Amino acid sequence: MFIKDEDFLRDRVPMTKFEVRSISIALLDINKGDKFVDIGAGTGSISIQAALLGADVVAIERDKEALELIRKNAEKFKVEIEIIHAKAEDVLNGLEFDKCFLGGSGNEMDYIVDIVDRKLRRGGIIVANFIKLSNANKFIENMSSKGYSVATSLVSVSRMDENGLLKANNPIFVVKAVKCLEVQS
Amino acid sequence: MFIKDEDFLRDRVPMTKFEVRSISIALLDINKGDKFVDIGAGTGSISIQAALLGADVVAIERDKEALELIRKNAEKFKVEIEIIHAKAEDVLNGLEFDKCFLGGSGNEMDYIVDIVDRKLRRGGIIVANFIKLSNANKFIENMSSKGYSVATSLVSVSRMDENGLLKANNPIFVVKAVKCLEVQS
Repeated sequence: MFIKDEDFLRDRVPMTKFEVRSISIALLDINKGDKFVDIGAGTGSISIQAALLGADVVAIERDKEALELIRKNAEKFKVEIEIIHAKAEDVLNGLEFDKCFLGGSGNEMDYIVDIVDRKLRRGGIIVANFIKLSNANKFIENMSSKGYSVATSLVSVSRMDENGLLKANNPIFVVKAVKCLEVQS
Repeated sequence: MFIKDEDFLRDRVPMTKFEVRSISIALLDINKGDKFVDIGAGTGSISIQAALLGADVVAIERDKEALELIRKNAEKFKVEIEIIHAKAEDVLNGLEFDKCFLGGSGNEMDYIVDIVDRKLRRGGIIVANFIKLSNANKFIENMSSKGYSVATSLVSVSRMDENGLLKANNPIFVVKAVKCLEVQS
């Protein structure tokens, strides 16, 4: 049910690592039948994990190489996910969803988040991962100003290698933003 | 499907926190129908999360106050788990299981692990959390000497509070040990 990093096909496409993936999926509180959108799906690791837990998944990815990896990984783990080759900002308007994962951020983050905010149902959840403090801060401030309930963790994981050395992964800001249930006056 | 820390009844009983709980559950690769034993179940947070994901759960706890919390939490989240009030070493021999969680360690750890090793099915998984380096190291050496495949992470999580301060949780050693499939000669 929970896939190890080494079981995904990866090439040189960046991937959310096991520990942060597990936390992100749990924060998204993925349930059977959730309509879930993965923005910048990369290798598809989050998409596929969500699909295995029963979500209806749309994976959006603009990079062609990554797109092929998502297809292959979905096939490998026998899950059906809708894969869209596009920039998120060009297709989000046509979607409705309960939950959304943002695996990183380009220059268009604010613009994308504005669309996500319009399309996400009330009570819906956005989880975002950031390696850059400045982007994390921008996202937190943006979601707070939109009235979302925001919770932030900084997650640092070191893994022991075969020689017993603890090798550090980059610390990742994991941010959960929940859209408020009531319309604000 | 994934429970937040604040939704568990806790009192003063120690609890595996959300991020480390999510990682531990994912490392255990909890699947529907898994026979899962939670040794020193505390508030029952791991037991209940595993049950929600479909495992058949036995929670062992020797502390009476904690026992009552497990009952109440199981009721709150509407899961059926078998709760045993005992020292693990007194009841493990009567159980068969695929997966096992060790939430900490008393003086009896080596003895308990010996029994777990005998009763765990081949290919089965033990995940253990340690706050003390010495106990983590003892467990890693013990499982390695028994021929288990061992993977260790050190997980440090800081959570942002309402004032924007990153408040650190204690770093936790999260160890996964997989029992080898073949009998060693």
